[in-house]
Amino acid sequence: MNSQRKNIKDMINKWLTSNQEDGINLLKALVQAKSTQKNEKDSQDIVIKTLEKIGLEIDVWEPDGEKLQKHPYFACSRINFKESPNVVGVLKGSGGGKSIILNGHIDVVPEGDIAQWIHDPFSGEIIDGKLFGRGSTDMKGGNVALLLAISAIRELGIPLKGDVIFQSVIEEESGGLGTLAAIERGYRADAAIIPEPTNMKIFPKQQGSLWFRITIHGRSAHGGTRYEGVSAIEKSFLVVNHIGELEKQRNNKITDILYENIPIPIPINVGKIEGGDWPSSVADIVKVEGRIGISPDETMEEAKKEMTDWLKKLREINLWFDESPVELEWFGARWIPGSINIDHELMNCLSTCFHEVTGEQAKIEASPWGTDGGLLTNVANTPTIVFGPGITEKAHYPNEYIEIDKVFEAAEIIALTIVEWCS
Amino acid sequence: MNSQRKNIKDMINKWLTSNQEDGINLLKALVQAKSTQKNEKDSQDIVIKTLEKIGLEIDVWEPDGEKLQKHPYFACSRINFKESPNVVGVLKGSGGGKSIILNGHIDVVPEGDIAQWIHDPFSGEIIDGKLFGRGSTDMKGGNVALLLAISAIRELGIPLKGDVIFQSVIEEESGGLGTLAAIERGYRADAAIIPEPTNMKIFPKQQGSLWFRITIHGRSAHGGTRYEGVSAIEKSFLVVNHIGELEKQRNNKITDILYENIPIPIPINVGKIEGGDWPSSVADIVKVEGRIGISPDETMEEAKKEMTDWLKKLREINLWFDESPVELEWFGARWIPGSINIDHELMNCLSTCFHEVTGEQAKIEASPWGTDGGLLTNVANTPTIVFGPGITEKAHYPNEYIEIDKVFEAAEIIALTIVEWCS
Repeated sequence: MNSQRKNIKDMINKWLTSNQEDGINLLKALVQAKSTQKNEKDSQDIVIKTLEKIGLEIDVWEPDGEKLQKHPYFACSRINFKESPNVVGVLKGSGGGKSIILNGHIDVVPEGDIAQWIHDPFSGEIIDGKLFGRGSTDMKGGNVALLLAISAIRELGIPLKGDVIFQSVIEEESGGLGTLAAIERGYRADAAIIPEPTNMKIFPKQQGSLWFRITIHGRSAHGGTRYEGVSAIEKSFLVVNHIGELEKQRNNKITDILYENIPIPIPINVGKIEGGDWPSSVADIVKVEGRIGISPDETMEEAKKEMTDWLKKLREINLWFDESPVELEWFGARWIPGSINIDHELMNCLSTCFHEVTGEQAKIEASPWGTDGGLLTNVANTPTIVFGPGITEKAHYPNEYIEIDKVFEAAEIIALTIVEWCS
Repeated sequence: MNSQRKNIKDMINKWLTSNQEDGINLLKALVQAKSTQKNEKDSQDIVIKTLEKIGLEIDVWEPDGEKLQKHPYFACSRINFKESPNVVGVLKGSGGGKSIILNGHIDVVPEGDIAQWIHDPFSGEIIDGKLFGRGSTDMKGGNVALLLAISAIRELGIPLKGDVIFQSVIEEESGGLGTLAAIERGYRADAAIIPEPTNMKIFPKQQGSLWFRITIHGRSAHGGTRYEGVSAIEKSFLVVNHIGELEKQRNNKITDILYENIPIPIPINVGKIEGGDWPSSVADIVKVEGRIGISPDETMEEAKKEMTDWLKKLREINLWFDESPVELEWFGARWIPGSINIDHELMNCLSTCFHEVTGEQAKIEASPWGTDGGLLTNVANTPTIVFGPGITEKAHYPNEYIEIDKVFEAAEIIALTIVEWCS
């Protein structure tokens, strides 16, 4: 590290230390502003205020669902985004440098079974250096790291040549509509970072995923003569087990070394089940919904075909499926896989900064879930790395939390990376 | 058969033949007047008009849910019965004879998956002597048989000593609130017939049943790292299989000869399943709902205890249940078992009339489901037989239908039985 760079690193570190309280308060406020689907506005208003304070050029708009739904990569459960704005803030460079997109989603998944939470899921309670709440790890902690990084650079007056484009997007959790809307609005850059919860690992490859719905048929009858009917609930168990076999087969084929520490590289998760309409009747229809992970080395179409063909084999397991085949739909969310070369310039830059800040070698892996990185890399031609302070295992989990120190560590690494990349 | 009796039988038979069109039209109108829970009024209005035409004393009232919910045998998913009346019609006898209650429920279960119906479930379409539609077999065909029987006796001027009390009740399908309300209103008799769909078999014993809800817990996680969570959906399969084992054990203990032709005498049916709230999350809670059959030879408390104890054994199957036990609730509907002696006087009377009309010996079995007979027998002290023209296998089934001839055959047998019993 040359002395000028060392100097900048120290300035950023000092700035972050002296602004710790503001950073924590910002994160707490964002977690408290529950931003499940359709409720993003309060959180976005906090983001807008923060961007105003930093002094960026701000762009706030409600995506045009009518228009976007014609896009081949549209995947969303709604087309009306009233009161669900996207927010972008741009720090213009002086020109002649490389630009960067810093993208984070503001939406959070539902809190699930409230009984499993020790605190109110939207309290933002802080205990022993951990801030608890839905969205803390996935990914408001990452978003705060971005805002701190930009704020530090701006307040310290560090000159940049390339533009820094901060994006607070909606709808990542159901397929990336917010990022797609930002791409369609014209935002592009030479590279991007998304601080999803990676446990501070660097992910040059992101798994894609697709949502599916399978409809399983039975034949109704009175529960007292249930042997006259065919239970769609019992048949659904066969279907879910059959999907488990497909998951095994697909994962046995994964040889990429970036997945070697991941128990199931591309999981298939059945997340919802619903069927039957009367306790005393045999259920005649059950629907299961889930997500199938897409390897960075396959296309979505290949994965779809594999699952479609696999479900046709159900008839070999149980004759009922010959008479009443299950129906497979692809619906709602979809995240296309993304991949950049592990020796891409931004990989080197980020890994170096990581080492300078932490004194350790960065761990490089492939992501266990889809992110908006697939859209940025493939649709916006903006090579994307996923790297952030949240805890992978706590995403979508009761008692989700983030370690506050990691938010500041990530902010420092990202600030240094921006300075290096955009200068 | 003595000549007077032969004469009455012939008169009734002739009357039924000449009133066939009216009877069919009445059944068709009742099926078309969809009477799922809370929608009983249109059907009851048709019943009231029919009772007016026959010339009975009519009693129409909306049950008082507030009051009835304090009754130890109250079991219903609601306490407001506005627009859901009970209807009773009484044909007073001249005195000194035995009385009879003729009870049928007007409510029908939902139609289920519409795609499995060939005709509109509420069309009342007639093809080859079969009348199709939800409720045709369970049990509007039986109710029409009762109305035809009373109508014949009344129009033919056959003198009776005992009272005939016809009851068209609501809420049988969710636990017998309508019949309980009629009992609480004071209706009692020396015996009762309920023409539920028995395939023209005579059931002196009725299975009881109880609705249960089991809550199964998991632990949420992101679907992309599903190995960090515990799927309540996967655990629910273990629970349903475990319940299947209990069903086997309970049925192995049934030795009553009346059950010898029934594949599963007292089934446990899991009729509903629902859980998980996001396709990309591991489901942290699943609820299953079902009914457990209660043998006429056990109490409801015994059955409850057996199931409660059985579910505690889940921890032996899977350690997860030791950490997160399932929760069992008894909710909604409940039908107490009923049983009368197979040589009860009404059994002999009904069997004899059956033989006189059909020329065959009546088949005597135990019912595969709960009926309001348990309430009548045990709470109203009115020994009850279940015997009707509907098809057991078609109850709660898509394309439910009834054979029209059987409705008239049952009407003739029941009319003769009334004359014999009440004279």
